[in-house]
Amino acid sequence: MKALLEQLVEENRPFARQGRVADYIPELSKADPRELGICLLSQDGEEQAAGDFQRVFTMQSIVKPILLLLALLDNGEEAVRAQIGVEATGKPFDAINDAEQELLSEHLNPMVNMGAILLSTRIRGENSAERFRRLLDFTRQLADNPDLAVIQAVYESEKKNGSRNRAMAYLLKSHGLLCEEVEDVLDCYFQACSIGVSCRDLARIGCLFASHGRAPGSGKPVFPERYARYVNAILMTCGMYDGSGDFAVKVGLPAKSGVGGGIMAVCPGRMGIGIYSPALDVKGNSLAGIRLLEQLSHRLGLSVF
Amino acid sequence: MKALLEQLVEENRPFARQGRVADYIPELSKADPRELGICLLSQDGEEQAAGDFQRVFTMQSIVKPILLLLALLDNGEEAVRAQIGVEATGKPFDAINDAEQELLSEHLNPMVNMGAILLSTRIRGENSAERFRRLLDFTRQLADNPDLAVIQAVYESEKKNGSRNRAMAYLLKSHGLLCEEVEDVLDCYFQACSIGVSCRDLARIGCLFASHGRAPGSGKPVFPERYARYVNAILMTCGMYDGSGDFAVKVGLPAKSGVGGGIMAVCPGRMGIGIYSPALDVKGNSLAGIRLLEQLSHRLGLSVF
Amino acid sequence: MKALLEQLVEENRPFARQGRVADYIPELSKADPRELGICLLSQDGEEQAAGDFQRVFTMQSIVKPILLLLALLDNGEEAVRAQIGVEATGKPFDAINDAEQELLSEHLNPMVNMGAILLSTRIRGENSAERFRRLLDFTRQLADNPDLAVIQAVYESEKKNGSRNRAMAYLLKSHGLLCEEVEDVLDCYFQACSIGVSCRDLARIGCLFASHGRAPGSGKPVFPERYARYVNAILMTCGMYDGSGDFAVKVGLPAKSGVGGGIMAVCPGRMGIGIYSPALDVKGNSLAGIRLLEQLSHRLGLSVF
Amino acid sequence: MKALLEQLVEENRPFARQGRVADYIPELSKADPRELGICLLSQDGEEQAAGDFQRVFTMQSIVKPILLLLALLDNGEEAVRAQIGVEATGKPFDAINDAEQELLSEHLNPMVNMGAILLSTRIRGENSAERFRRLLDFTRQLADNPDLAVIQAVYESEKKNGSRNRAMAYLLKSHGLLCEEVEDVLDCYFQACSIGVSCRDLARIGCLFASHGRAPGSGKPVFPERYARYVNAILMTCGMYDGSGDFAVKVGLPAKSGVGGGIMAVCPGRMGIGIYSPALDVKGNSLAGIRLLEQLSHRLGLSVF
Repeated sequence: MKALLEQLVEENRPFARQGRVADYIPELSKADPRELGICLLSQDGEEQAAGDFQRVFTMQSIVKPILLLLALLDNGEEAVRAQIGVEATGKPFDAINDAEQELLSEHLNPMVNMGAILLSTRIRGENSAERFRRLLDFTRQLADNPDLAVIQAVYESEKKNGSRNRAMAYLLKSHGLLCEEVEDVLDCYFQACSIGVSCRDLARIGCLFASHGRAPGSGKPVFPERYARYVNAILMTCGMYDGSGDFAVKVGLPAKSGVGGGIMAVCPGRMGIGIYSPALDVKGNSLAGIRLLEQLSHRLGLSVF
Repeated sequence: MKALLEQLVEENRPFARQGRVADYIPELSKADPRELGICLLSQDGEEQAAGDFQRVFTMQSIVKPILLLLALLDNGEEAVRAQIGVEATGKPFDAINDAEQELLSEHLNPMVNMGAILLSTRIRGENSAERFRRLLDFTRQLADNPDLAVIQAVYESEKKNGSRNRAMAYLLKSHGLLCEEVEDVLDCYFQACSIGVSCRDLARIGCLFASHGRAPGSGKPVFPERYARYVNAILMTCGMYDGSGDFAVKVGLPAKSGVGGGIMAVCPGRMGIGIYSPALDVKGNSLAGIRLLEQLSHRLGLSVF
Repeated sequence: MKALLEQLVEENRPFARQGRVADYIPELSKADPRELGICLLSQDGEEQAAGDFQRVFTMQSIVKPILLLLALLDNGEEAVRAQIGVEATGKPFDAINDAEQELLSEHLNPMVNMGAILLSTRIRGENSAERFRRLLDFTRQLADNPDLAVIQAVYESEKKNGSRNRAMAYLLKSHGLLCEEVEDVLDCYFQACSIGVSCRDLARIGCLFASHGRAPGSGKPVFPERYARYVNAILMTCGMYDGSGDFAVKVGLPAKSGVGGGIMAVCPGRMGIGIYSPALDVKGNSLAGIRLLEQLSHRLGLSVF
Repeated sequence: MKALLEQLVEENRPFARQGRVADYIPELSKADPRELGICLLSQDGEEQAAGDFQRVFTMQSIVKPILLLLALLDNGEEAVRAQIGVEATGKPFDAINDAEQELLSEHLNPMVNMGAILLSTRIRGENSAERFRRLLDFTRQLADNPDLAVIQAVYESEKKNGSRNRAMAYLLKSHGLLCEEVEDVLDCYFQACSIGVSCRDLARIGCLFASHGRAPGSGKPVFPERYARYVNAILMTCGMYDGSGDFAVKVGLPAKSGVGGGIMAVCPGRMGIGIYSPALDVKGNSLAGIRLLEQLSHRLGLSVF
C-alpha cells in the first residue's frame, strides 16, 4: 500500500504545475505548488502515508463539515435544517445572489460561505470567542491532536482581505439572520478557516466520518452515526464546490476541499483520507489532489457507487 | 423481509393523501393517489414485493438515466461529457434560464429536461423514430421484459401539453445544439417518458446499476461497470430534482423519480428498488414513496454514507 | 437644413464600418453596410431627406410600437397594462429567464420579443391572418403609404430561423398566456417584422407620435394623444434595447431601432425622424444611425431633457 | 395656480392612507403619513406652494442625482461613465446580484445604491469627511439655502441599520472598486442621505436641472447644460426605482424619489417641482405624491412626451 501511495504521489506531482496556488489571500500564495502529500487511516487504525504528508496548512473550507457537525450536536438536526438547507445551490462557493425579498434556508447550504458563516453563529457559546474555543477544542478532539492551532499569519491575512465574507455577513444581518457584530462573527470564522492541520489530521477526522462517529482502532463512539451520515451526504452533493458532480463521477466519495490545498475524503466503512497539494484548479480544488484521489479510487475500488 | 415490506406499505399508504397526483398532463391526473407498491431485487436474483407492485405506470423522468446510459454506450464518456455537464444546476427540473449569450455544457445536466432532450438526439439512429426504437429495445433488455410498451394515452397527452418542453427544444435549436426538427425530437422524448413499467421493471433496472452492469442472478455483463458508476453518481447528486440533497441525507442512495409516481433506487452492491405511489410532494417526487424508502433505508442500513 | 443632413450623412457614413450587418437571419446579411439615409418630417408637413433615404428595408422591431398602439386602440390601456408591463427588464431583447413559477405582466415589456409576441395576439381579429391584415392596413395608414408590403424573402428567412422566437412563444403558451397555435401566432409576428419601409415611412409614423396622434400638415386626429404619450414613454425607457439609457443620455428622444438597420425617432411637438444604416453595434442598434442622431440632436437642440 | 395646487393636495391627501411610511430605518417611521406638500418653482423664478410644503424631511435617494452631478463636475463625463453605467438594471434599488466573476460598470447605475455608494467615493476630497463637506456645500448652493444640514437622528438611525448598504460596500471593495475604509465611505453616504430639505429646496434644485444649469430668475449659469441633460436622462429611465416605466407613462417627467417621502421632478424648460408625502407604495415611491404629480402633469401638460 505504501508503495502504491508513493508511486501515485510521484506520478501526480508534475500535474500540480497546471494549477495555481490561491492568491486572493496573500499569505496563502506563499505555498509551494510542487508539494503533494497523502495519508490514509483505516477504520481499524492503520495509517499509511506518502509525500508531503507532514506539511501543515490551513483548513479553510474543510472546517465547514466540522462546523456543521458541532452545530448538529449543539442544536439537533431539525433546528439546523430549519435555518440552513441541504440542496446544491448551483452557484460558486462565494456567489451572492440576493435580488429576492427574503433569504430562505433553501438558499443556504452549509458548504458555501454564506451558510457556513451563519452556522458559525449557531454553535453554543456566550460570544464569538467562546464559540471559537469550543470549535477548536472539538477539532482537536476529532483529530486526536491537542496541538492544532490557528496559523496567525493566515488568519490576519484573511481578516485583512475578507471583504467578500464581510459582504455576506452584512447581508445575513440585513435579513435578520445574524444578531451579533459582524466583525466578531467573522473573527470566529476567519480563525476557524486558519486552523493548521496536516494530512494525518484530515485522515483521522475523515476516518471518524467513515466509521460513523467511532474512533479508529478502538471503535469508541465520538458522535452519533446519524450525524456522520448527514455530513457525508452533504459532502457528496456539495463538498467540492461546483466541481461536486464531477468529483462524484470521477472519485465517488464524500469529500471536502479547501483553498489551502487540502482535501478530506471519506470512504464509508473503510477509511479516511487526507490530501495536500496547494495548486488549485479553476474551481478552487486541489488539482493534483483530485487526480491522485481518482486513481486511488480506481485502484482500490473506493467509490460508493 | 416480505412482512417488513408489507408493514411499511401499510404504514406509509395514508401519507399519500398529503401529496398531489400530477395534473399538468391531464392523463396522469387519473392515477389513484392511494396506491403504493414496492419491489426489491437483490444482486443474487431474489425478489420481494408488496402493495401495488404490479400496477403499470409511465416512466417519465426515470427514463433519463437510461437515455444517459445508452448515450454513453453509443458515444463514450468523453463525447457525452463535452455536451452535457454533470453539475447540479440549483434550479427546478424545468427551469429555463437563458439570458446568456452562450449555452454551455455546464448549464446542462442529464437529469433536467433540457439536458435529457439533448441527450435523446445523441443516441444512435437514422432518425427520431429509429432512436426511439433503439431506446425501447434497450429498456426492454434492461428490464428483461419484452412486453414494455408506450402507454398511448399518456404519450398523446404529453404531446398535446408539451409547450414547456417545446420551448426548451427550440432554445437548444437556437443555440445550434439541435439540428433536427423539434417535433421529431420531442416525439422520441415524449414516447420515452410514456413507456409503461411496474415496480418489478424498475427494481430490475435499478439492480443492474447496483451490480455495476451485471445481470442479477447470473452475473452476466450487460454494460460496463464504469458507466454504472457514472450514472449512479449523477443520480445521487441530481436524481431527485431539487430535493436531491434532502434525499441524500434521508435515504442515502442514488435514485431517480418521475412525475408518474415511480422511483428507481440503486443500492450499490446489494439491490435495486422499484417504488410506485403517484401522489407527489411539492418538488415532484412521490411523497409516500420517499417516506417508505427512508424507513427501509434505516431498517436495512442501505445508505452508502 | 438639407445641407446639414447631407453633411451629417457624409461625415457618419464611414463609421458604419465599425458595425456589423445582422446575420442571424441570413436574408438580412445581404444589406450593404455602407448605406446611410435620413428623413425628417416636421409637424407642419415639411420633409427633408438625405443619403439612402429611399432604400426599402424591413421594420423588424420597429413594428413593436405599432403593435402596441393597435393593441391599445383595440383594448384600451388598462387591459393592455394588465398583461404586458412597462418596466425595463434590464435584459437583452431576446433574454429568456423563466426559472420562476409564474410569468407575470411585470416580467414582460412591449419592446422585448416575448412581450411583443404576446401583444400580437391581443389585437382584434378572428385569426392570425386577419390580425396581420389589420396590422398591415394600420401601418399603411400611419405611414400614409398604401404600397407597404411584406418583403417575402426576409419573412421566409425569419420563419426558417426563428427558433428563439418559437421558444418564447411556447413559453408563453406553457404559462397559459397564449391559446392559439404557436406557428400561426409567429406567422403574424414574422410577417409584421418583415414589412418593408423607407426612411420616409418611418419619419411619417414618428411624426404622428411626435404630434400626439395628429397627421402632419393637416393636424387631423389619427389616434388619441394619450396613446401617443404612452408609446413615447416606453420608447424612451426601452426602445433601444439595453442601449436605451445610453441613447437617452446621448440623444434624448423616444426612439425604436430594428435589426434591419432602421431607427424611428420621435421629437415631441416638432418632428419625426427615419434613419437607415444596416451596420449594427454590439447591442443591435444601427451604429452610424445613432451617431448621426446624436449630432443632429445637439445641432438642433432636439433632446427632451 | 395656487388654488389648483391646494385643490390637488386636498384631493390626494386621503390616498396616503393606502401607502406605508418607511420603517426599515426606525427614525423614518416617525413621519406623519397624512402629510402632503408641493412646491413649484418656474424658470423665471416664480414660486407656488401648497400643503405641508415647509416640512423638513431627509433627502435619502434624492441626493443621488446631486452626487452624480458633482462627480461629473469633478471628473468629467467620460471618467464617470467608465465606472458607473447608465442602463436600467431591471432590479430593485437594493438588489445585490453578484454571481459573476467581474463587476462591470454596466451592472451599476447611479440611481441604485451600489452605484451611488461608488459615486460617493468619486467626488473630490482628501477623505470621506471632506467629500461630504463638499457635497453638503454643493447641495446648499444648488438649493440656495445655506441652512441645509444633516438631521442627526436619521443619520444615526441609518448608520445603525445599514447592514444592506454595508454588504454592498464590501462587495465593491472585494471587486477592487473601493479602496478606502467601508465605514468611512458609508459615513459620507449616510450623512448625504440624511440631509434635511423641504419641498422648496427640491423645487429649486429641480428647477436648476429644468433650466439646464441656470439659476431660476437670474439665468446665471451654475453648471453646464450637458450635465443637466445627462442627469435628466438618467432620472427619466431610472429615477423612480422599478416604477420608472410606470412613472414615465403616467407623468412623463425626469424625477427622483426618496424613501423619506420626497420627490424632485424636473420639467425641462419650465419648472422644478418638490413634493413631500411620506407614505410609500410597494416600490418605495411616495404614493400620494405620484398621484398628485400625475394629475398636475395632465392639467398643465407637463409631460415631455
